[in-house]
Amino acid sequence: MKQYSSEQLMKGIHAYIGSLAYARDPQGLYDPIEYVLDMGGKRLRPVLMLLAYNLYKEEVERIYPQAAAIETYHNFTLLHDDLMDKADVRRGRPTVHKKWNENTAILSGDAMLILSYRFMMDHCPAELLPQVMEVFGQTALEICEGQQWDMEFEQREEVTVDEYIEMIRLKTSVLLAGSLRIGALLGGASDEDAEWLYRFGVKMGLAFQLQDDYLDVYGDPATFGKKIGGDILCNKKTYLLITALQRAGQEDRHELQRWLSATDVRPEEKIAAVTALYNKVGVADCCRERIDAYYEEGLQCLDRVSVEETLKQPLKDYVCQLMDRQL
Amino acid sequence: MKQYSSEQLMKGIHAYIGSLAYARDPQGLYDPIEYVLDMGGKRLRPVLMLLAYNLYKEEVERIYPQAAAIETYHNFTLLHDDLMDKADVRRGRPTVHKKWNENTAILSGDAMLILSYRFMMDHCPAELLPQVMEVFGQTALEICEGQQWDMEFEQREEVTVDEYIEMIRLKTSVLLAGSLRIGALLGGASDEDAEWLYRFGVKMGLAFQLQDDYLDVYGDPATFGKKIGGDILCNKKTYLLITALQRAGQEDRHELQRWLSATDVRPEEKIAAVTALYNKVGVADCCRERIDAYYEEGLQCLDRVSVEETLKQPLKDYVCQLMDRQL
Repeated sequence: MKQYSSEQLMKGIHAYIGSLAYARDPQGLYDPIEYVLDMGGKRLRPVLMLLAYNLYKEEVERIYPQAAAIETYHNFTLLHDDLMDKADVRRGRPTVHKKWNENTAILSGDAMLILSYRFMMDHCPAELLPQVMEVFGQTALEICEGQQWDMEFEQREEVTVDEYIEMIRLKTSVLLAGSLRIGALLGGASDEDAEWLYRFGVKMGLAFQLQDDYLDVYGDPATFGKKIGGDILCNKKTYLLITALQRAGQEDRHELQRWLSATDVRPEEKIAAVTALYNKVGVADCCRERIDAYYEEGLQCLDRVSVEETLKQPLKDYVCQLMDRQL
Repeated sequence: MKQYSSEQLMKGIHAYIGSLAYARDPQGLYDPIEYVLDMGGKRLRPVLMLLAYNLYKEEVERIYPQAAAIETYHNFTLLHDDLMDKADVRRGRPTVHKKWNENTAILSGDAMLILSYRFMMDHCPAELLPQVMEVFGQTALEICEGQQWDMEFEQREEVTVDEYIEMIRLKTSVLLAGSLRIGALLGGASDEDAEWLYRFGVKMGLAFQLQDDYLDVYGDPATFGKKIGGDILCNKKTYLLITALQRAGQEDRHELQRWLSATDVRPEEKIAAVTALYNKVGVADCCRERIDAYYEEGLQCLDRVSVEETLKQPLKDYVCQLMDRQL
C-alpha cells in the first residue's frame, strides 16, 4: 500500500482547498471565507485525517472533501473566536472583523459552518455517512462548549487544573481526535481502532496545548513565532498560572496575585517577575512532566491500533515533528 | 389515512420541542438556546413540514426531530440576525445579546446551528439522509445569502424590485419551501411532487413577506402586532418604498427622498406624509396585486401535486388562515 508523508498530504490538501469553488454571489459573504481559507497554516487537522485514512487505504484524494470540511470548520471557529476575543491579527494578517466588520464576521462565519457540513457530506459513502456526521456534530458541539468554558474561566477567580484540562480537551483536543476518527472510519477501520486513534488524538492535543502554554514563557523567541510572555501580560489562566497559584506558598501567591492585579506596569518587568515566580515554584518541570506523560500515553494508544507498526511511522513522525519543531 | 389539522400539528411539535433534552453543561451556552426555543411563535416551518409529510404518511411523530431541526435553524437565524440588526426585543422579550451579551449570542447561535444539523439527522431514514441534508444545507446557505443582500441593500442608494424579490426569496421563502420539500421527501413523495411543493412554498413565502410589508403601512393596529409605520420610520427598503421611488413622478420622488433624509421629524408626521405619497402613487394596489398573484401561483403549484385533492385541504386551510389572520 502506498504511504504518504505528512508533507505530501499537506501539499495535496492545500492545493485542493485552494481549488474549491464555493465562491458565488454575494461576494460580500464569500470573499471573507476565501480570505480565511487562503491564509494557510499547517493544515494540521486535515493532515491527521489523511494520515489516519492512509493506515487503511491509499486513495487519499477520495476524502479530500472531508479533510477540507474539517479545515473549514476549524477556520470557522478561529473566525468567530477572534471576534469574541477581539483579536485583531491572525497569522500576521488582519482578522475578518477588522478587515471587514463585525456583522460580516458573524454571517460569513455562519456560512463557513454550513459549508463545512456540505463538504463533510460531499462524496461521503452512504453507509458511513451517519457515523461520520455523528462524530462531526458531537465534536463541533464540544468545541463550542470548550470556548464557552474558556470565556467563563476568564471571568472566574479560581479554576482548577482539572477544569483547565477539560476545557482544552474540548476546545483543542477533540477536533484533532475527531479528525483522526473520521479518517479511520472512512478508511474502513474497526470501531476499536477508531476509538484508539481518537484517544491518541485527545492525548496529543493536550500535549500540544500544554506545550503552547509552556513555550509562551520558556520558548525560543527566534522560533516560537509569537512574542514571549503574551499569556502572562493578559493574565491568561494557562496551565502554568493555575499550577503556580495552586503550588505557591502564601507569600509567593500573594506576590503573584499582586502582579495579576497590577496596572500601569512595564511589560518586561511583569514578564520577568512572573517568570521568576514560576521558576521558584517549579511549574516548568510540572508542565514538562505532564506534556511528556500525555505524549507517552498518546503513543501507547497508537500502539493499540491493529495495523502493522511500519504503517504507523508517518503518523508518529508527524506528531514527533510537531512537538519538536516548537521546542 | 389519518389527517391532522395545522392546529393539532402545532401543538404536537410545540410539546416535542419543549421536551428536547439538549441542555447540558455549560449552562452559559445552553440556557440562551432554551430561552430562544421556549419563546414560542407559530412554529410555521415545522407545521408546513408536517403538513407536507401528512400528504403521504400519517405517522407524523416520526419526523418530529426534522421538524424541530427546522425550527431550531430558524431560531438560530433570528438570534444572529437580531444581533446584526441590533434589535433589542423579539416577541416582547429581550433578545439574547441584550439579556446576556454579544459573545453569548454569537456562540449560542453557533451551537444552535450545530444542534439543528444533529436534529435533522436524528432518526432520518438512511436512504433519504443524503437528499434531506442536501436540501437543508442548500437552504441554510441561501438564507445567509439573503441576509447578506438585505444588509447590503441597507447601504445602497438604489435597489430594484427584482433584486428585492430575490432577496426575500432567499431570506424568507426558501426556508418555507425547504420545510415542505423535506416533509415531502420524508413522506416518500416523488421528486416531481417535492418540487411542486417547494415552488408552492416559494410563492407563498413571497406573498407572506409582501403582505408583511403592506401591513406595516396599511394594517389594522389592533391585529397587526407591531406598531404601524415602523418600516417607514427606519427607511426600510420594502416593496412599497422601492415601488414608490420607481413609479413616482419627479416631484413626488423628490418629496419622498426629502422625507427619507429628513432628521429631527415627528414620527407620526413622517408616517402620514410617506403614506400619503404611497397612496398618491398607487403602491398599495401594486402590492395587493402582487400578493394575490403570488398566492394564486402558489395554489397552482399545489394543484400539480399528485395526491387526492381532499388531502391537500389542511395545507390550503393553513396558508389561507395565515394570509387572512393578518389582514
